[in-house]
Amino acid sequence: MPTIHVEMFEGRTLDQRRKLVKEITEGTCRALGCPADAVQIILTDIKKENWAEAGKLFSDS
Amino acid sequence: MPTIHVEMFEGRTLDQRRKLVKEITEGTCRALGCPADAVQIILTDIKKENWAEAGKLFSDS
Amino acid sequence: MPTIHVEMFEGRTLDQRRKLVKEITEGTCRALGCPADAVQIILTDIKKENWAEAGKLFSDS
Amino acid sequence: MPTIHVEMFEGRTLDQRRKLVKEITEGTCRALGCPADAVQIILTDIKKENWAEAGKLFSDS
Amino acid sequence: MPTIHVEMFEGRTLDQRRKLVKEITEGTCRALGCPADAVQIILTDIKKENWAEAGKLFSDS
Amino acid sequence: MPTIHVEMFEGRTLDQRRKLVKEITEGTCRALGCPADAVQIILTDIKKENWAEAGKLFSDS
Repeated sequence: MPTIHVEMFEGRTLDQRRKLVKEITEGTCRALGCPADAVQIILTDIKKENWAEAGKLFSDS
Repeated sequence: MPTIHVEMFEGRTLDQRRKLVKEITEGTCRALGCPADAVQIILTDIKKENWAEAGKLFSDS
Repeated sequence: MPTIHVEMFEGRTLDQRRKLVKEITEGTCRALGCPADAVQIILTDIKKENWAEAGKLFSDS
Repeated sequence: MPTIHVEMFEGRTLDQRRKLVKEITEGTCRALGCPADAVQIILTDIKKENWAEAGKLFSDS
Repeated sequence: MPTIHVEMFEGRTLDQRRKLVKEITEGTCRALGCPADAVQIILTDIKKENWAEAGKLFSDS
Repeated sequence: MPTIHVEMFEGRTLDQRRKLVKEITEGTCRALGCPADAVQIILTDIKKENWAEAGKLFSDS
């Protein structure tokens, strides 16, 4: 029953999302030996003004 | 002090949200014996292109 | 497909957990009109030394 | 490697975000003795119709 | 900068964890075209008494 | 009503936790102009075998 959350910068295309969930699901099944339909994935798009490293927003980098 | 996060498909009406937080709060208080004002709930709307099962986006199902 | 995360202080009994997930699931279905088997819930137990309000750990309150 | 998520009401200015991630990063480094570039922060803006306390949405308060 | 959280039932071996993070990282890089060292993954082990579907704990199924 | 989650490697002392929540709360209040008692913080300890970067667990680094 793996449930997976992916946070990434906004701007990914629909095709990238499709490929991403397919890759992560297949890799998870290979690693854990679980069926594909047990894997749920939720993607979250993060704006650069909402992600910071070293105390600085990525929109300011 | 239960803090509850609900992820659901986008498109719920304001009335559904109202009813949802009321139902979850009351059910939580009945189960745990806590006062209603100790219960915090955050709702997150997920687009079908951001939720996948079995390696496939719900927007493609 | 609601996915629900509940964070609460540690120490709840198995019976309270059982009742909690039953109550939240039924309340969610009444509010959103979804089938019960679409509702996933994950409970997380938080130690009082890991939860703070007003800058103070609950273990120090 | 602290990873920090902040959920807050929507409407904060870019300047408030800048100050927030700077303050949290510096405070974390002072408390944990870690370098600033080990601290990642993700901010999430929550609408008042998606946050509830005591079974009531903040948009209805 | 993808940050990925995986929730799964407890009991996975260290080797399964190793394989899981390798597979997910490589799949994410293939899908998004990002470097491997931009991918952070946090695994969370969930007890069956803390995960429910259809209002029933998995420890009771 | 900021709600803050901090994920960090396990092993922090109680004193570090105390200082951490105090620092983050005060910094948040300075940045957002909110009262201290509106700030909730939950700390999560992550084992090195559950955190990975570049496809490799920190316990293997």
